[in-house]
Amino acid sequence: MTTQQPGSRRRLLVIGIGAGDPDHLTLAAVKAIRRADVFLILGKGPEKSSLTDLRRAMLDEHARPGYRVAEGQDPWRDRSEQDRGSYTAAVHDWRSRRADVCERLILDELAPGETGAFLVWGDPALYDSTLAILDEIEDRGTVALDIEVIPGITSVQTLAARHRTTLNRVGRPIHITPARRLPEAATAHDGDTVVMLDAHESFTRLEGRDLWIYWGAYLGTPDELLISGRLADVADEIRHVRADARARHGWIMDTYLLRPVEPEDGPET
Amino acid sequence: MTTQQPGSRRRLLVIGIGAGDPDHLTLAAVKAIRRADVFLILGKGPEKSSLTDLRRAMLDEHARPGYRVAEGQDPWRDRSEQDRGSYTAAVHDWRSRRADVCERLILDELAPGETGAFLVWGDPALYDSTLAILDEIEDRGTVALDIEVIPGITSVQTLAARHRTTLNRVGRPIHITPARRLPEAATAHDGDTVVMLDAHESFTRLEGRDLWIYWGAYLGTPDELLISGRLADVADEIRHVRADARARHGWIMDTYLLRPVEPEDGPET
Repeated sequence: MTTQQPGSRRRLLVIGIGAGDPDHLTLAAVKAIRRADVFLILGKGPEKSSLTDLRRAMLDEHARPGYRVAEGQDPWRDRSEQDRGSYTAAVHDWRSRRADVCERLILDELAPGETGAFLVWGDPALYDSTLAILDEIEDRGTVALDIEVIPGITSVQTLAARHRTTLNRVGRPIHITPARRLPEAATAHDGDTVVMLDAHESFTRLEGRDLWIYWGAYLGTPDELLISGRLADVADEIRHVRADARARHGWIMDTYLLRPVEPEDGPET
Repeated sequence: MTTQQPGSRRRLLVIGIGAGDPDHLTLAAVKAIRRADVFLILGKGPEKSSLTDLRRAMLDEHARPGYRVAEGQDPWRDRSEQDRGSYTAAVHDWRSRRADVCERLILDELAPGETGAFLVWGDPALYDSTLAILDEIEDRGTVALDIEVIPGITSVQTLAARHRTTLNRVGRPIHITPARRLPEAATAHDGDTVVMLDAHESFTRLEGRDLWIYWGAYLGTPDELLISGRLADVADEIRHVRADARARHGWIMDTYLLRPVEPEDGPET
């Protein structure tokens, strides 16, 4: 690794900004946004422009006057790899190319001594690659970083709050899983299962089980959709509502909780 | 169920206030605290007085001048039941007695048309019984409630942020489990495991496995303790630091993440 002069260090804030409700920003996130000289963004194109607008509104409200935004082009991701079974390798390759773009952004746009910030939807700890990308950049030794992480409210928490339910039942575990690990992940235990990143309505592969579903989309935003019920009863409704909303908005982000239906007060096995 | 006049409804806010860092309050939590006429508290006695002080400081900073606090006596919990295998039944019985106390508090201290608030450490969705208690009170039909839930940053998220790590690895699930479900919960899958509510250093029962541990106590507070490393290397250090801190403070709340040690870039099975 290249050694760095102390003065050449750059401070980076990785700030969780919640799932869509601007009031889900924490006081720590607001203070962090206020400290940043420049916001670094990997652009994903125009398709989720309502989220881009929401992020800009947060900056206009909380960032220092004269704040800078530096946007890099998010590299293309070969999603066909997913279907050929090398999902992890494809993600790692993509991450590496994103690290190239972020390293360039940091070197070009963030002067030594300045403070930069990445704004992360939800929480940087949950299914987000920013921290892994920064680890990879640090490992290259080309730039010295002081990194601080500010946690944020996730879509999972917003889902539970809006449905006024908990994520766990008494004494039971919770499992959070990418949809591609269903149904295996939901059947190997007696706890509740939260499903993230589901592009394929994977809950339809579980219809044989007696499950309660708490489903939500665009959580925390004015477009929020909520449906709950016995999976067998509401699966069709969710499919229709989801397809309709996706067509209307051009994109959808949804999350759901699956809970086995059983007498809660029964003896524990 | 007793029918209620619309005017007799009471509004209750269940507010997640984070794990100990007052800056982890969300803007929504601050606004909710400001809306409340009275804060309802189940007192647990003097043992965790630093948390009580912290909660009072949050109210003094954010609540309306003249806010009221109404405290009920948390009923005694028969913890011996845990060891006799009827953990869930014991918790449900305890919850029922807590519902009695809360129902009394609501009827006596919160007038119809007023807004009351429960402040919940962490997030009301994660291993907290407030929502279940309010469900039970609503089922009794003696008082009509309008309940709103505001999510909060959990100790799990603070743990990950302070260790600057994620809770999941690429494409893998996350399991959050009460300590009593270890080691079963940590061995049945290839994901990361977060352990909550561990009074018995259950990680020591996993020392045969090659795991990385990210451990934290008093997270988000000035007393915060952080240790990470290979479990086999740091288990003794955690035991000592934990026992020492517990003796000094009179109580401890700790949380940890367990991650299987394996070549991350290796082929996925």
